[in-house]
Amino acid sequence: MSHIYDYLVIGGGSGGIASARRAASYGAKTLIIENNRWGGTCVNVGCVPKKIMYNAAMIRETLGDAKGYGFDVPSRQINWNMLKQKRDAYITRLNGIYERNLDNDKVERVYGLARFVGHNKVQVNDREYEAKHVLIATGSYDMRPTWPGAELSLSSEDFFDIEHLPRHVAVNGAGYIAIELAGIFQYLGCQVSLFIRQGTFLRTFDTMIQTKIMDEYRKAGMEIIPYSKIESLTRTASHPTESVVQNPNAYAHTVEYTNTQTGERKTLEGVNLFLAAIGRKPQTPKLNLSALSDLKYDAKEFIVTNAYQDTHVPNLHALGDVCGKYMLTPVAIAAGRRLADRLFGGKLDAKIDYENIATVVFSHPPSGTIGLTEDEAKARYGEANIKVWSSSFVNMYYSMCDHKGPTSYKIVCEGPNHRVVGLHLVGMGSDEILQGFAVAIRMGATKHDFDQTIAIHPTAAEELVTMK
Amino acid sequence: MSHIYDYLVIGGGSGGIASARRAASYGAKTLIIENNRWGGTCVNVGCVPKKIMYNAAMIRETLGDAKGYGFDVPSRQINWNMLKQKRDAYITRLNGIYERNLDNDKVERVYGLARFVGHNKVQVNDREYEAKHVLIATGSYDMRPTWPGAELSLSSEDFFDIEHLPRHVAVNGAGYIAIELAGIFQYLGCQVSLFIRQGTFLRTFDTMIQTKIMDEYRKAGMEIIPYSKIESLTRTASHPTESVVQNPNAYAHTVEYTNTQTGERKTLEGVNLFLAAIGRKPQTPKLNLSALSDLKYDAKEFIVTNAYQDTHVPNLHALGDVCGKYMLTPVAIAAGRRLADRLFGGKLDAKIDYENIATVVFSHPPSGTIGLTEDEAKARYGEANIKVWSSSFVNMYYSMCDHKGPTSYKIVCEGPNHRVVGLHLVGMGSDEILQGFAVAIRMGATKHDFDQTIAIHPTAAEELVTMK
Repeated sequence: MSHIYDYLVIGGGSGGIASARRAASYGAKTLIIENNRWGGTCVNVGCVPKKIMYNAAMIRETLGDAKGYGFDVPSRQINWNMLKQKRDAYITRLNGIYERNLDNDKVERVYGLARFVGHNKVQVNDREYEAKHVLIATGSYDMRPTWPGAELSLSSEDFFDIEHLPRHVAVNGAGYIAIELAGIFQYLGCQVSLFIRQGTFLRTFDTMIQTKIMDEYRKAGMEIIPYSKIESLTRTASHPTESVVQNPNAYAHTVEYTNTQTGERKTLEGVNLFLAAIGRKPQTPKLNLSALSDLKYDAKEFIVTNAYQDTHVPNLHALGDVCGKYMLTPVAIAAGRRLADRLFGGKLDAKIDYENIATVVFSHPPSGTIGLTEDEAKARYGEANIKVWSSSFVNMYYSMCDHKGPTSYKIVCEGPNHRVVGLHLVGMGSDEILQGFAVAIRMGATKHDFDQTIAIHPTAAEELVTMK
Repeated sequence: MSHIYDYLVIGGGSGGIASARRAASYGAKTLIIENNRWGGTCVNVGCVPKKIMYNAAMIRETLGDAKGYGFDVPSRQINWNMLKQKRDAYITRLNGIYERNLDNDKVERVYGLARFVGHNKVQVNDREYEAKHVLIATGSYDMRPTWPGAELSLSSEDFFDIEHLPRHVAVNGAGYIAIELAGIFQYLGCQVSLFIRQGTFLRTFDTMIQTKIMDEYRKAGMEIIPYSKIESLTRTASHPTESVVQNPNAYAHTVEYTNTQTGERKTLEGVNLFLAAIGRKPQTPKLNLSALSDLKYDAKEFIVTNAYQDTHVPNLHALGDVCGKYMLTPVAIAAGRRLADRLFGGKLDAKIDYENIATVVFSHPPSGTIGLTEDEAKARYGEANIKVWSSSFVNMYYSMCDHKGPTSYKIVCEGPNHRVVGLHLVGMGSDEILQGFAVAIRMGATKHDFDQTIAIHPTAAEELVTMK
């Protein structure tokens, strides 16, 4: 006998929780199923603990800048273990808040693995649940490499298990997760070797961002190894009772890799900890999706939906990372709320607009982007129709410091009215600067709208409205 | 015999320089006259050195937060003297850059005091200069109090002469300059007593900003003395060879004041340094403006102009602080450029829009504002037509810290479409967050435009587009 609901949400992460709570607010009888910690990737192994580690790295940078301002900071050594414990306790508190929010909003919770046993029916812990509408919001998981010795490496999610500051870290990957984690290691005082497959990283971002962050990471002492393909990882020292995350510096590894331009085979020795952040896959393997023969997937196995988050199976919906498009917490949240608005709130046309989604990389300094890169804009609109304004300068903050962090902004405009179709930022504060510009650009801002706005002085952001 | 120009600019500060350079870019033969350091208030005794001191105070806050993130910072003592020397050297470099920019743009410079000897003619160092158009951009100066002992106090401009960290400072004033300087003193480790005339400070700002910053200053240990009127200042200790700015801690003062609510007379003893930031006056006394009988002034003696920066004297213009309206560098710069565009660039309707000018107070945490306060909006549009969204939260940054800095945002909307007519921010990063929202609000943004924009997570700014 099945338990019957209006809405059955599989996955208690950002998107699932947002959609379930919104549905329940309309009176829909809603069940949410999770087999791991409440809050999903963002809260447990993503945005939140990452940002805390990033804050720590930024604070350590500030400790370095402090000398220029007349302060004496004799040591910048971090007590990683103490921070990890506090961070874990904070996340546990957040898990509890998520549970209570669901309870307060009258969303029923069940803990366990969901398996489809019909197009609108799942089994969890030997019980069956069915609903008019089912949402797959199970997110994604971290891909693991397959070369010899890959089992000795950590993934981006394992990062959060590390208990002590490693001495020498190797990171493999060129996407934003790899670049954020490599940055955190570097700016917290590790020696970092970064293996990337091409000549630059963050390759989906504007070349300005690629170049500026690469330069800055190199200046900070990071060893960036371009055109590299990992061949194997060998462990040369280990600890009898503690794991690599418990005691990274008791471990040593040798990385064997090939330079894909020259074909040369090389080794890097003495790596305490090897972390691969090489991509994410949809969290679908245990859902028994074979029961849903009409469901469609893209080339990377992500679930395909229309703009309304409908899959090819009637009344089955999917959103968030499991769809592989804009794998960002706020996108999943917005999609989840809009979906509930549509299914249970009578807003028949509710859906999110995937144009002009702003995104930030917590690199050092932070970088942010909205819309098209310069290259994409030229490809879409034709080079003659694109005008680009850009500016590089030193933030006044660094006037007292030996280290001069970079700031670079680029505004990409289209057509005779110079409508802003891309905005790209590198520099201190870019993470916070971007949001308001995202509102303006969504509204169709032109360069003239930027120019007509009075600057706020002295800030970094003012450069965006004074660019000539 | 007069030297003849197209454009004669009196005052080499932000507004004058911007206008002169823009005029010269159109080929106008332009002269600029300055009798002090190039760059005016902003560069020499305003925004720039203030921001550097503010940065130092923010860094010292971060040194305090660092413990929560696992760093050990044994001392937060600033070497104020070293910072002052570096700051002065930096400002001197900027002065040189301003001079070179004028030279590069073919603006002639003359150093000396300008005295009007006709409606379009001035005398400087016994030479006469005349022009078709004359601009008064002489700025403002810091008012000095008049009570007994006032000559023992410093003004906001004197702040920049202080050579060592004072132990106990008294600040008098409730405007943004007083609040910024009191904050810098407090967060750099001084004991601060702040005398304000009413119950709160920053009284032209939304009450949320008044309350939040007052609370935070008090939590930081600042003594705020409301409803106080200074009666006198007496020096009880002094130094035979060094001035109070050279060696503040060799000085002691007793402040006598009245509580204006109770009438009670009180004293505060042991104040090393007393700073009054009680307002600014137009920098006009030495210009011999009596030669221009048609010139009109407002009740506070600021020069009156129309929206195009024209005074009541034909071809005589004024802008910036000397007009007493929005005394902000970017406003003077924008007004200066627009004026030159109009006079020499053929843009007959160029002028600036004084609506929705964003402004930031470098308080702790920083605060920012655009448009109307809640009270102003209700007064202008009627209470029934105003809807306000607000949110207070703790920035995730503080999750690891004992000290939880406040963040509070308020969006004031008007009419059935909820057009945003006021935005008020308190909290870390507000100074940089505001600029993009200023663009959107100038474009006529509604609450719906905010809501439709996807958030950037995890940031503080995202709260502005997710507020319910």
